[in-house]
Amino acid sequence: MSAIDKLSVSTIRGLSIDAVNAAQSGHPGAPLGLAPAAHALFRKMKFNPQDTKWINRDRFVLSNGHACALLYSLLVLYNYDLSVDDLKQFRQLNSKTPGHPERLDTPGVEVTSGPLGQGISNAVGIAIAQKQFAATYNKPDLAISDAKIYVFVGDGCLMEGISSETSSLAGHLQLDNLIAFWDDNRVSIDGDTACAFTENVPERYKAYGWTVLEVHDANTNIEAISDAIDEAKKIKGSPVLIRLVTTIGYGSQIAGTGKVHGAPLQADDIKQLKKTWGFDPEKEFYIPDEVAKYFSDKVEENKKEQQAWEKLFNEYKSKYPKEGAEVQRRLDGKLPDGWKKALPTYTAKDKAAATRKLSENVLDALYPIIPELIGGSADLTGSNLTRAANSVDFQPPSTDLGNYSGRYLRYGVREHGMAAIMNGIDAFGANYRNYGGTFLNFVSYAAGAVRLSALSHHGVFFVATHDSIGLGEDGPTHQPIETLAHLRAIPNMSVWRPADGNEVSAAYISAIEGVHHPTVIALTRQGVPHLEHSSIEKALKGAYTVWPQEKPDIIITSSGSEVSISIDAAKELEKKGVKAAVVSVTDFLTFDKQPIEYRLEVLPDNVPILSVEVLSSFGWSKYSHEQFGLNRFGASGKAGDLYKFFEFTPEGVAKRAEQTIKFYEGKKIYSPLHTAFEELP
Amino acid sequence: MSAIDKLSVSTIRGLSIDAVNAAQSGHPGAPLGLAPAAHALFRKMKFNPQDTKWINRDRFVLSNGHACALLYSLLVLYNYDLSVDDLKQFRQLNSKTPGHPERLDTPGVEVTSGPLGQGISNAVGIAIAQKQFAATYNKPDLAISDAKIYVFVGDGCLMEGISSETSSLAGHLQLDNLIAFWDDNRVSIDGDTACAFTENVPERYKAYGWTVLEVHDANTNIEAISDAIDEAKKIKGSPVLIRLVTTIGYGSQIAGTGKVHGAPLQADDIKQLKKTWGFDPEKEFYIPDEVAKYFSDKVEENKKEQQAWEKLFNEYKSKYPKEGAEVQRRLDGKLPDGWKKALPTYTAKDKAAATRKLSENVLDALYPIIPELIGGSADLTGSNLTRAANSVDFQPPSTDLGNYSGRYLRYGVREHGMAAIMNGIDAFGANYRNYGGTFLNFVSYAAGAVRLSALSHHGVFFVATHDSIGLGEDGPTHQPIETLAHLRAIPNMSVWRPADGNEVSAAYISAIEGVHHPTVIALTRQGVPHLEHSSIEKALKGAYTVWPQEKPDIIITSSGSEVSISIDAAKELEKKGVKAAVVSVTDFLTFDKQPIEYRLEVLPDNVPILSVEVLSSFGWSKYSHEQFGLNRFGASGKAGDLYKFFEFTPEGVAKRAEQTIKFYEGKKIYSPLHTAFEELP
Repeated sequence: MSAIDKLSVSTIRGLSIDAVNAAQSGHPGAPLGLAPAAHALFRKMKFNPQDTKWINRDRFVLSNGHACALLYSLLVLYNYDLSVDDLKQFRQLNSKTPGHPERLDTPGVEVTSGPLGQGISNAVGIAIAQKQFAATYNKPDLAISDAKIYVFVGDGCLMEGISSETSSLAGHLQLDNLIAFWDDNRVSIDGDTACAFTENVPERYKAYGWTVLEVHDANTNIEAISDAIDEAKKIKGSPVLIRLVTTIGYGSQIAGTGKVHGAPLQADDIKQLKKTWGFDPEKEFYIPDEVAKYFSDKVEENKKEQQAWEKLFNEYKSKYPKEGAEVQRRLDGKLPDGWKKALPTYTAKDKAAATRKLSENVLDALYPIIPELIGGSADLTGSNLTRAANSVDFQPPSTDLGNYSGRYLRYGVREHGMAAIMNGIDAFGANYRNYGGTFLNFVSYAAGAVRLSALSHHGVFFVATHDSIGLGEDGPTHQPIETLAHLRAIPNMSVWRPADGNEVSAAYISAIEGVHHPTVIALTRQGVPHLEHSSIEKALKGAYTVWPQEKPDIIITSSGSEVSISIDAAKELEKKGVKAAVVSVTDFLTFDKQPIEYRLEVLPDNVPILSVEVLSSFGWSKYSHEQFGLNRFGASGKAGDLYKFFEFTPEGVAKRAEQTIKFYEGKKIYSPLHTAFEELP
Repeated sequence: MSAIDKLSVSTIRGLSIDAVNAAQSGHPGAPLGLAPAAHALFRKMKFNPQDTKWINRDRFVLSNGHACALLYSLLVLYNYDLSVDDLKQFRQLNSKTPGHPERLDTPGVEVTSGPLGQGISNAVGIAIAQKQFAATYNKPDLAISDAKIYVFVGDGCLMEGISSETSSLAGHLQLDNLIAFWDDNRVSIDGDTACAFTENVPERYKAYGWTVLEVHDANTNIEAISDAIDEAKKIKGSPVLIRLVTTIGYGSQIAGTGKVHGAPLQADDIKQLKKTWGFDPEKEFYIPDEVAKYFSDKVEENKKEQQAWEKLFNEYKSKYPKEGAEVQRRLDGKLPDGWKKALPTYTAKDKAAATRKLSENVLDALYPIIPELIGGSADLTGSNLTRAANSVDFQPPSTDLGNYSGRYLRYGVREHGMAAIMNGIDAFGANYRNYGGTFLNFVSYAAGAVRLSALSHHGVFFVATHDSIGLGEDGPTHQPIETLAHLRAIPNMSVWRPADGNEVSAAYISAIEGVHHPTVIALTRQGVPHLEHSSIEKALKGAYTVWPQEKPDIIITSSGSEVSISIDAAKELEKKGVKAAVVSVTDFLTFDKQPIEYRLEVLPDNVPILSVEVLSSFGWSKYSHEQFGLNRFGASGKAGDLYKFFEFTPEGVAKRAEQTIKFYEGKKIYSPLHTAFEELP
């Protein structure tokens, strides 16, 4: 190592352990082992700390997010909008340096990571997006996109199944813009990885189609790491895994043990470490002047790289005005003018159809006019109906199955990986509007990534078909029960369950415009009629009266396939002189954002409200006094038989409506919207 | 193939496609391709169709559960309690032949499968249990357990990350009692696997430490399959993957295409198939007499195997009376006498402690006296505190890290795999009481398997620590919000959130006695005081008044770490002359099973009820009129700071209690337990 490299690495190590020490909480082990690799990598990356959203920056993802003290230290040294004072606030409430990297909290953090296996999977998504962007817009003479995606992964990430899913897909897709560094330190929380993780990782990755490089003295040999990075960047046709053999907590008295993983170092250990680096053992958060200067100089070089790119992009815009304008529009976060006009609308005279089919109609309409619309399915294309007409698959050209400008992704049977890749595509930028299809029930497989979509404000959306027992014969293993309750309980998550064609179109408007939160669109396998009083505009309020009544005796709140059943129930009741109104609840999150006046118009006082949805009734008391749901597992059988068996028929609903009216007779009734106190913001 | 083999295979194929045809729904492709392998395997297996719970039977798991027509056909031929009439009811409501194999519905089905990747992971669990059982009880002269575990897997199973997790662990654990057959038919729902799945599966499995055998003409060469099975059974020290190169829909006019995967065959295709088999093309569900006799004879041989084992076991019981009695006790589903006496109890004078620590106390107490108690953690042993004192790890003896009679499992960072393995251990039998530890938030990673625990009535339990923002600095990526709502919305799922030591002991009684449903025990990272009025007995009712008041002005329902805060709030309120009672809700499922009289005693009419839990309030309206919850993501910071910031303090709770009282002033109040109509059973 050169003197400045050595000093830089020691500074990174020092800042990291001081941050953990200040917090008396955190993970010093991985930063000590990985500092040389991080330093070797960052000085080769192109990025501009003053413009963290520059579309052609190289990306860095810390998949072993618990090592974030390392990342924060680098961001401070590179003059991101993050200071030593922020490091001193490591892991404190409302600081810019939370316990795991959060993309919304810290400039320079590309994705929220920490839940293991997510980061590397996000990186695969970013790499897909970069490839797709480059293939769409680069010209032989003007390549506006050539960024690389780098990711650090720990043993824990590689044990998680999600990394297998996405690494296998990355190999298949030949993503040679992706370079992963495996921190092979042989220690996880349970101690030596020998206790649970003895597979041959390099061979596994070769089996996925990756190229594997190795650096055996990564604690110290920064040149070898640099050489490996240079070599990796030259490799064509496959992603690269660089195995870094490191020592967790390198230099510490407890180096190489599980103890150094997740707890602050002892004071005397910190002192001896600083001494070995030639630092004053009493000084904290020490940045030698020459190190500060070294990094400042690097930043100036970095800025020049962006300036050169801006020049290139201007040239691109003048030479290719159409594409240039499109790229600029996307970078500005604007959708094509008038795109909503393409959305289909329906009247009650239109033929009944499954909402999954109506979703396909929307995709068919939008695909040609929104080039940033990109999506796929976890091997359920023909069931989810997620592939728009005339789509081209995103595939390595050598497969003859598509090309890199293709916009349809064959995810394989990999729901969790798909969701994390979607988050990565979203994180790339350029306003990708990206979706993934699976059965609603199997969104559960992806739950780990889905909650991160919500936490990180990724505007991805899930086309979740087969959304109830209405899927029929596949039976209870495939029939969601708890799924909508689960998803609705996630903060910042839109969960649409449209009842007909107009509501499906509304769901897509909400999902495509919802760039700061994820959306699940739950869709039927079975046909549903188009409703007499539905409209896109009304559906976009999250709930609306779809079957009005003057002074109703009861209001039925319902969603999706149960709305038309509820309307039929209302018609049955009408014959008996009972006036039932029906409210279609399209999305809880959207409805909760409406003014209270509107909400009380829909769900007023003095009327009993019954909710009807053929899944768990959990949570529906937000919008009803009584709940008719399915709080048991479903069954295998014809959809019609199941609805009958479970009494989700006009008669079954009408019966419960009458029971509800009777139950509330003579009682003063308040709308469930009234609450005694406000929610925390 | 011999004539009878050929005829048998054709019969299996015929029954399978006729079942799908009768239902006009299902999957004919895999049964046609896999019939020879299934036939070759089943005739080598030891099992007794009349005693499907025989502990030393070989197990068969159909991980590609959609191929269940194949399995049902074999079960019919082997005279399980399943008839041709049942096949005719394939995929019909309330039949014994549901659309995917359900262990509760069909004799001979070992585990519920269909959600891809679960079956192979269950099989790993069964193999672990068999190894552990054999190592615990076998004697050099008397081996009472030597069963093998066989599993069919499709490409879809191998794409799912869960299979990577469990296959890697199976390799590490050297499970040579496990033999998997990969149906390498190169077709999944999206068509040719070339579109998404081009990894080298054999190399990947070798990297996991498996032995890989190959049969390249598995559509027809039953001898080669038989030889491979014989070879696999001899292999020591590693699980075996047998690659079967097959053609999906073998023999059909659409063989080898995606079309034959999941839809009934055309009538003329069925006819031509039957003709090629030499069958009458008009006959359905045809079983030639010689085939019927062949299988009946096999069953008689099979029965003899069990008889021989019964003799062996009797010998064992007389020679090793202590062990014999223990095995018999376990087979009878009985726990050791008086085990509950070992459970710790506490008074308010005992020192405050984290409930995860109190959980460790229970495990320490029970481990020596319940030999069927077996558990582990997904690489969070030191955080979950799941390893009882003096535990031995379940490890291959060659690792020197433990042995096969060890009862502590090092799952690695593999939550989803862990949960599916737990289901498998449960499915083995011998009344294993098995648990797995992770952070509550990361139970979400395992959601796909957890819902199957509930659906399949597996009495497994999850030690889910770090159950709220109380985990502090790790921040929102690790802090559960929607998790309890998600889990509580799953039917047949116990979700305990104990508030102190007595409640933790109660949770374990409920979990260990709850052999027909899974349990999640949510536990704190941070300390909580022992409550003055808590007791095991009261906690076992699911909810009880832990802070009583004569004629309360308000009742606060709460759980876990918020109960003591609520009691402190009640004390604050008392100073102002406001009488607040506090109810500790330990488990929704348990409480819902109590008589209505008891429930109304706890949550009576005429008192406003406020729920307090520092996670999503979704679902709490079951037991409250107003909800104080956390319907946003948490934050990284010290636990105390977070509770204060989010106002989960005695003052914050008291304030909302007063607001609630005020809100309900003058209004007639009904207990939320009253409903207008009954739930469906």
